[in-house]
Amino acid sequence: MNPLPPGSTIGILGGGQLGRMLSMAAARLGFDCHIYTPEKGSCAARVSARETVAAYEDEHALATFAKSVHAITYEFENVPAATAEALAKSGTPVFPGAKSLAIAQDRVIEKEFFASLGIATAPFARVEARGDLDGAIKSVGAPAILKTRRLGYDGKGQARLASAEDADTAYAAIGATPAILEGMVKFDREISVIAARGRDGAFAAFDVCENEHSGGILSITRAPARIDAAVAKKAVAATRTLMDALDHVGVLAVEFFLMADGALLANEFAPRVHNSGHWTEDACFTSQFEQHIRAIAGWPLGATASFADAEMHNLIGDDVATWAHFAADPEARLHLYGKGEARQGRKMGHVNRIKPRG
Amino acid sequence: MNPLPPGSTIGILGGGQLGRMLSMAAARLGFDCHIYTPEKGSCAARVSARETVAAYEDEHALATFAKSVHAITYEFENVPAATAEALAKSGTPVFPGAKSLAIAQDRVIEKEFFASLGIATAPFARVEARGDLDGAIKSVGAPAILKTRRLGYDGKGQARLASAEDADTAYAAIGATPAILEGMVKFDREISVIAARGRDGAFAAFDVCENEHSGGILSITRAPARIDAAVAKKAVAATRTLMDALDHVGVLAVEFFLMADGALLANEFAPRVHNSGHWTEDACFTSQFEQHIRAIAGWPLGATASFADAEMHNLIGDDVATWAHFAADPEARLHLYGKGEARQGRKMGHVNRIKPRG
Repeated sequence: MNPLPPGSTIGILGGGQLGRMLSMAAARLGFDCHIYTPEKGSCAARVSARETVAAYEDEHALATFAKSVHAITYEFENVPAATAEALAKSGTPVFPGAKSLAIAQDRVIEKEFFASLGIATAPFARVEARGDLDGAIKSVGAPAILKTRRLGYDGKGQARLASAEDADTAYAAIGATPAILEGMVKFDREISVIAARGRDGAFAAFDVCENEHSGGILSITRAPARIDAAVAKKAVAATRTLMDALDHVGVLAVEFFLMADGALLANEFAPRVHNSGHWTEDACFTSQFEQHIRAIAGWPLGATASFADAEMHNLIGDDVATWAHFAADPEARLHLYGKGEARQGRKMGHVNRIKPRG
Repeated sequence: MNPLPPGSTIGILGGGQLGRMLSMAAARLGFDCHIYTPEKGSCAARVSARETVAAYEDEHALATFAKSVHAITYEFENVPAATAEALAKSGTPVFPGAKSLAIAQDRVIEKEFFASLGIATAPFARVEARGDLDGAIKSVGAPAILKTRRLGYDGKGQARLASAEDADTAYAAIGATPAILEGMVKFDREISVIAARGRDGAFAAFDVCENEHSGGILSITRAPARIDAAVAKKAVAATRTLMDALDHVGVLAVEFFLMADGALLANEFAPRVHNSGHWTEDACFTSQFEQHIRAIAGWPLGATASFADAEMHNLIGDDVATWAHFAADPEARLHLYGKGEARQGRKMGHVNRIKPRG
């Protein structure tokens, strides 16, 4: 398969900020983007050459969309299976492929996949129904988190159990649906690896970064992470093992817990560009967005070295009202997503603080 | 006048690569852009929220456009006077203002304006008609260049005179129209200053850069220029004098000739972002595009310091066919404009080579 030449059109499922930043990166390389989203006036479509506003279940619209583009990608991993199938039928290549999506969409399968590759995770157990939960608590221990197997995002669909007594409440809280119970481990740091894999299997990772969450939502990312080189190397190696096993094409992010004894436990992966990679846009030669477009277009991967230390702060909900403060700060690189309403918990933008070295 | 808040819409006259890069910079700050251009499928509109495809003389379309945006700017200085007047009538602010446009549009007035500010230029003379040309050659000397007073761009509308004998041919070549005769000076380097001036009069310049032209079109820009600090300081001071005198708001570029004895001669200015400022996107905290948007939106100007040395190469016409070469070069930052046809002399993209320091 030849690389996609500039002038080709890339289709992106999803109209959010990740699609928006992918679209702008693609435009810089001379591609047009076509956004497919159910949302009118989406922030991604407003920087893109074309848009289709239709439901993800609309097979006719999907087929028309697929015919109008040269390659398809997505900004979120919860693409419905029927949508992915309809696109696959079109003959237009979809990157990343079905395996990355299928495994990322189910937390039990994801954890089992990590385990099958020898990548350690926190203890976990399947909870198909309420009856499984007591045994799961015994095996995993408490405190633990009960999570729906599917469609979790930014802390939604999760309930915490301090002890076995919370089982009924937690199960009800997640909607009495198939779930996974994960042991809560006491980690030193949360780190993540953002890496890309090309159509030819080439691999390139950005500096490992470290993350702080608040209320289940990423708050701050620092890069490079303040960790031993050996730990960073191990995290990148595990990420590469995962991406090879998925035959992944595009960017992928893996979140790890770093334990006091130096052990790494994989928490989850996202088969897409990731919030904890936003710092790459201002501190690296190639951003994660450009890198994803390069990978799916069959271009050589770009250089991932950072030329500066970076600290990314998310602007969540009303945080965005402070834009004037950041606009006046010469060290802040402000990125706003053009979303209308600053609802609570909504990601409205981010700020990269960049410290050139030397 | 308060700063324009994110979510506002910025109107841009012109659908070329400068409008495209302005639009993407504005989007990153949370603005929507509305492109006004006679060209269908323009490269700027393909990354913008809205477009109006209409003639610059269409007063009704201009009025509707002006009402739909919160501020208006342009990517080219040859905005017809009637267009500028129609927009001014709308009440929507237009930046830069009428004075910058009027002076930039006429080479005689431009040179006289430099002179009135004590900014040296090469010798020049007005040529209202053929009868003025012989006297002009005597006063300016030969070789010289005869240029139309208006609507020159990238070497068009110009004719070179090796001696007085070329007068008839040259005058016919430029279309027998009001002109300026400029003495051709033997300079050491061509340099340019890209600077911005805010609504409040604040001023910020990027590193002075040096340019190589080929066939009348910019070919290479290097930044910072390899010149004495005193020369750079003088060039920036002259640029500031000019921008203050114009009450300019936005980015402006001045091209200078640097003579062997260290003298600086202003060649011309462009009241807009400029090809010789494209390196700022990859080597500075704030690009010239973001800086222009900040200025016209009434935001504080961004930091202009460079964190790397840069060399920008234009991709003109068929040069763009070499995209795969640059895509594979880890030191090249490729920017393609998404233009369809690679006509001779057409600016199709550019490459920034960035060398981080230390």
